[in-house]
Amino acid sequence: MTSNPRLIFKKCVGGGLPVVGEHIKFDNTPKIDLDNVPLKGGFLSKTLLLSPEPSMRERMRDPSLPSYTTAYNVGEIITGFGLVVVLRSEREGVKVGDYMYGITTWEAYTVQPYVEGRVDVTKYPPGTFDMDSLALQPVPNPNGMYPLSHYASILGTPGLTGYVGFQGIIQGKEGETIFVSSGASGVGNMVIQLAKSKGMKVIASAGSDIKVEYMRSLGADVPFNYKKESYDSVLAKNGPIHAFWDNVGAEALDAALAHARNYARFAICGTAATDNVPNEERYRLKNAHLIMKKCIKLYGFIVPDFLPQFMGQFLQEVPTMIGQGKLKSKELLVEGIENAAQAIVDMLNSGHDVIGKPVVIVAKE
Amino acid sequence: MTSNPRLIFKKCVGGGLPVVGEHIKFDNTPKIDLDNVPLKGGFLSKTLLLSPEPSMRERMRDPSLPSYTTAYNVGEIITGFGLVVVLRSEREGVKVGDYMYGITTWEAYTVQPYVEGRVDVTKYPPGTFDMDSLALQPVPNPNGMYPLSHYASILGTPGLTGYVGFQGIIQGKEGETIFVSSGASGVGNMVIQLAKSKGMKVIASAGSDIKVEYMRSLGADVPFNYKKESYDSVLAKNGPIHAFWDNVGAEALDAALAHARNYARFAICGTAATDNVPNEERYRLKNAHLIMKKCIKLYGFIVPDFLPQFMGQFLQEVPTMIGQGKLKSKELLVEGIENAAQAIVDMLNSGHDVIGKPVVIVAKE
Repeated sequence: MTSNPRLIFKKCVGGGLPVVGEHIKFDNTPKIDLDNVPLKGGFLSKTLLLSPEPSMRERMRDPSLPSYTTAYNVGEIITGFGLVVVLRSEREGVKVGDYMYGITTWEAYTVQPYVEGRVDVTKYPPGTFDMDSLALQPVPNPNGMYPLSHYASILGTPGLTGYVGFQGIIQGKEGETIFVSSGASGVGNMVIQLAKSKGMKVIASAGSDIKVEYMRSLGADVPFNYKKESYDSVLAKNGPIHAFWDNVGAEALDAALAHARNYARFAICGTAATDNVPNEERYRLKNAHLIMKKCIKLYGFIVPDFLPQFMGQFLQEVPTMIGQGKLKSKELLVEGIENAAQAIVDMLNSGHDVIGKPVVIVAKE
Repeated sequence: MTSNPRLIFKKCVGGGLPVVGEHIKFDNTPKIDLDNVPLKGGFLSKTLLLSPEPSMRERMRDPSLPSYTTAYNVGEIITGFGLVVVLRSEREGVKVGDYMYGITTWEAYTVQPYVEGRVDVTKYPPGTFDMDSLALQPVPNPNGMYPLSHYASILGTPGLTGYVGFQGIIQGKEGETIFVSSGASGVGNMVIQLAKSKGMKVIASAGSDIKVEYMRSLGADVPFNYKKESYDSVLAKNGPIHAFWDNVGAEALDAALAHARNYARFAICGTAATDNVPNEERYRLKNAHLIMKKCIKLYGFIVPDFLPQFMGQFLQEVPTMIGQGKLKSKELLVEGIENAAQAIVDMLNSGHDVIGKPVVIVAKE
């Protein structure tokens, strides 16, 4: 028998950050018989990497709160994006040694498919997306072309989010200016580089000086630390903007509205600034009237909205650009599934002084 | 010589409503020689109707404030939408007796074109629309099919705004619910009826009980007085909504965000609730984070954005629907250009206890 540690979702998170042990519990006691566990027509996977992402916070909320996604079930194993390798298989088309990327249970070994049908979508309003439906898909073995950890950053959901939103909403061109909030995040990392590849001027914010330097290394023309210079002052000086990629909301969104050109397009991708703030303390937007005054378009979106249109293009273009050195990505490697819960909290607690998309290394191959 | 009274723009309006005499001055002293005034290749028009509209408030602002439109020039005659008849003409294609609708100077008689090139658009940021460019265009003589005053309501800019925004953004269908704020306005009047013609359930707000009854007569399923029932409580009970047509902003927009379905579409057409409020007292939006959480799309827009796409369809469809009794419109007739300035203020001062799109009758034919 082999140890099969996992993360259990213990309790919905209210206004603040999740607390390790209270909301997310590491459970080291389960065991698995890797050679004999019944596969029931499925396959056995070994988890290599796990990818802490903001949507996990959304799934930890009280399920009665409005959201684009279904919530986690209390008492079950947490799910999220990960990279696995196939150890045994009874499923047609899935072979031993295959790499697969998608939503998986956050444990060391899993008899798949495990996440399908875990959530009763009929309990949610129409139009609520079940993240668990983003099932594991085969991905190529990079064979040294790029590190496996890219599957949890630029070649995973963060990169995909930046790519499809940029193609679908921003569509920048030379001479235009874009502002990217949380530019050192996994998504921001992709958006800054795509915007530069189109010849845009890029203003980008983050919460520490080391992240400012990282954004500069990605090509950002005006990277800044919002804790030292206000969004408003930087955009007043370097705007107005044709486009805004928003990962944070609140003051950043307000300043973007104030310094947007008429007909600016806003990709509303995240609300990190207020995700861990109680409802009554949430920042209140003062410039909403400018949406009309400036004919601004705001597009709240999630990745699945654009997958049919741009997934093929992503799979074709991005690995090539990485191979050619035209797209860079930095990952922050966290060793061991026992540290995965804290990695989720750290990812949500923005402004810390480390850079790179967090990736939990559960096992080497 | 004939008296040629007019409205002069005297002073930019700050945070509040314009004041007759202070910001807009009625000047009864000018005269015109209708038989001999030189036309210089243009034509002489007699003003029949003038149409007070919210965009006039926008043009009275300090020109340094951001807006979709150019501002008025201090000291010049106010311009706005109106219906004129041609008295004399030296211009090819313009004949004596023609009715024309579009932007004109707010005076009894005008040698046209008068408004072209009045505004130096280069003083404004790119993407600022010069309202004065919506020049007079020939319109059919209704010959009793409908009253001339319809040209200042359902067949004019208010009706056109509702029509093109509905076709371009809302595109409703049976089984869907829409919320229309300021439903008894010229624009709201059109949107309610179009939504009903598509089979939508219509929730609609206004600021007086008589307007509630008017909205009910237009077919609104849930008309309500926002001064008696909160936006939030009505939408909680009758939502969630698939679409929102917003003429007012502030609390209405906040409640619409709270009670929107995922992927709802918002046509952001006006901000009447805060247009006459000083900047620091403006309502601050608490639900902006839901744009992302619910993947909502917000489209700030003005009529010219959609004219190339839908103007032909409007001219073909709407007069026919009116003739068939499928579209109704009520106008509030104000007699005399001497009352035009007050009519503008009354139109901006929403919630008063009269219904109908205000129309100033300057002259009978």
